[in-house]
Amino acid sequence: MADPGDVRSRPIGIFDSGLGGLTVLKAIAALLPKEHIVYFGDSGRAPYGSKSPETIIKFSCQNVRFLREQAVKMIVIACNTASSRAYEAVRDSAGVPVVEVVRPGAAAACRLTRSGRIGVIGTRGTIESNVYIRAIQCSDAAVTVVQRACPLFVSLAEEGWWDGEITRSIAAVYLRPLLEQQIDTLVLGCTHYPLLSGVIAEVCGPAVTLVQAGQSVAAVVRQTLAGAGLLRTEPGAGHHTYYTSDSVDQFQILGSSFLAETVSDVHRIDIERY
Amino acid sequence: MADPGDVRSRPIGIFDSGLGGLTVLKAIAALLPKEHIVYFGDSGRAPYGSKSPETIIKFSCQNVRFLREQAVKMIVIACNTASSRAYEAVRDSAGVPVVEVVRPGAAAACRLTRSGRIGVIGTRGTIESNVYIRAIQCSDAAVTVVQRACPLFVSLAEEGWWDGEITRSIAAVYLRPLLEQQIDTLVLGCTHYPLLSGVIAEVCGPAVTLVQAGQSVAAVVRQTLAGAGLLRTEPGAGHHTYYTSDSVDQFQILGSSFLAETVSDVHRIDIERY
Repeated sequence: MADPGDVRSRPIGIFDSGLGGLTVLKAIAALLPKEHIVYFGDSGRAPYGSKSPETIIKFSCQNVRFLREQAVKMIVIACNTASSRAYEAVRDSAGVPVVEVVRPGAAAACRLTRSGRIGVIGTRGTIESNVYIRAIQCSDAAVTVVQRACPLFVSLAEEGWWDGEITRSIAAVYLRPLLEQQIDTLVLGCTHYPLLSGVIAEVCGPAVTLVQAGQSVAAVVRQTLAGAGLLRTEPGAGHHTYYTSDSVDQFQILGSSFLAETVSDVHRIDIERY
Repeated sequence: MADPGDVRSRPIGIFDSGLGGLTVLKAIAALLPKEHIVYFGDSGRAPYGSKSPETIIKFSCQNVRFLREQAVKMIVIACNTASSRAYEAVRDSAGVPVVEVVRPGAAAACRLTRSGRIGVIGTRGTIESNVYIRAIQCSDAAVTVVQRACPLFVSLAEEGWWDGEITRSIAAVYLRPLLEQQIDTLVLGCTHYPLLSGVIAEVCGPAVTLVQAGQSVAAVVRQTLAGAGLLRTEPGAGHHTYYTSDSVDQFQILGSSFLAETVSDVHRIDIERY
């Protein structure tokens, strides 16, 4: 970095419960290739999806304290469960701009729906928080939202069962009540779900548009940095550094499979110290 | 307790990554109804099954420090992954007798097999540790062991999908390679799996005997306490106290469903302090 005192040179900090947030990192890196990024995946305590609000808030605040120590200029909560349960706590304590993943996805769904019937799928924590219902109806009060928790989808994504008959059967069970409500737009409200989007699209059929928040989140990140005069201006591509609270090897292997490119510069940290 | 200084009056301490170990608690309480029990379920950091050995050892040692603070007279590791990865570390630091769940299950399987072909299923951590292969071949070197990790089984158990077509299809995929090797005995090497034993038995057919370690573990607990003169002698039923690192409500609801009886006296603790 040319001038370490220049706040624009600082990295964007991203955290997730584990690897799913790499789908968000990928979208941000594609739109903002010059930005440095520090990613923390809390694989040692993953998943967050079925844990209580108090636990998610505690873990998220620890993650923020770690990222702040890396002198980040912005924090991205790349996990729907943490965005649903801990956004306010993170925003109030971060000391830098905070972007989460629920509102950008909700706004994109409102722009895309024609029938005004939007489906949302996510973890138990995200669905029980009703945060998507509030965010969507805040964008457009006339929209009807039908939602459903799909806890097995994260396990299927991590098991590598991204297609096949069993995954299709499970998707059919989860999605049937939403399809019966004649949704025309479906928000994939968990950063693991894009890995299953082929099967989900097949079960939903061509009448339903899938919304993955990654690109919308990246647009909000760019807009927020630009608005604050914080976009990196030096020449050269940004560097990506990864931290995990579990095995470095496992992060590299699974992370490379999630990103479909090699993940290197991975470090292990003890998040419970924060 | 009549005499708090009497070590025989102290509780048995049991820990698990979450709720699965309640199947072990149930077997111990059935055999030793007079014993007080303190159970800790680490639901805030669950599951352990796919995490690294270092993480499992760290979490297990914290769990032991918490149980030692409750003045337990014995520790039971009611989690196959923790037994596989952290038994030595726990035994060396506990300061009280330690019972784990792998060896009792392995010994029971060796007694039951007629063909000498034993199957083992468990989490990725348990299977990769090869601890069942070592324990079974230590009991009987002539036995052939065929093993397979079944990561989706824990999610299916926690989702409440204990039977039905999808669970049967997943079990068929996981068990096919073991059945092709003509096993006659199958060790359910994860404390969640007894909840799926109906489906697993159906897929295996009548020629395969299922081994659930609960009763064998309870027998080892009784034998160890009796051998050390530590069985509780006062009149009256033992009291069970539960601790969790996540939501008390969720522990009560899911725990009652796992145990098929009401779980009360549940407390939340911050395990990261230990």
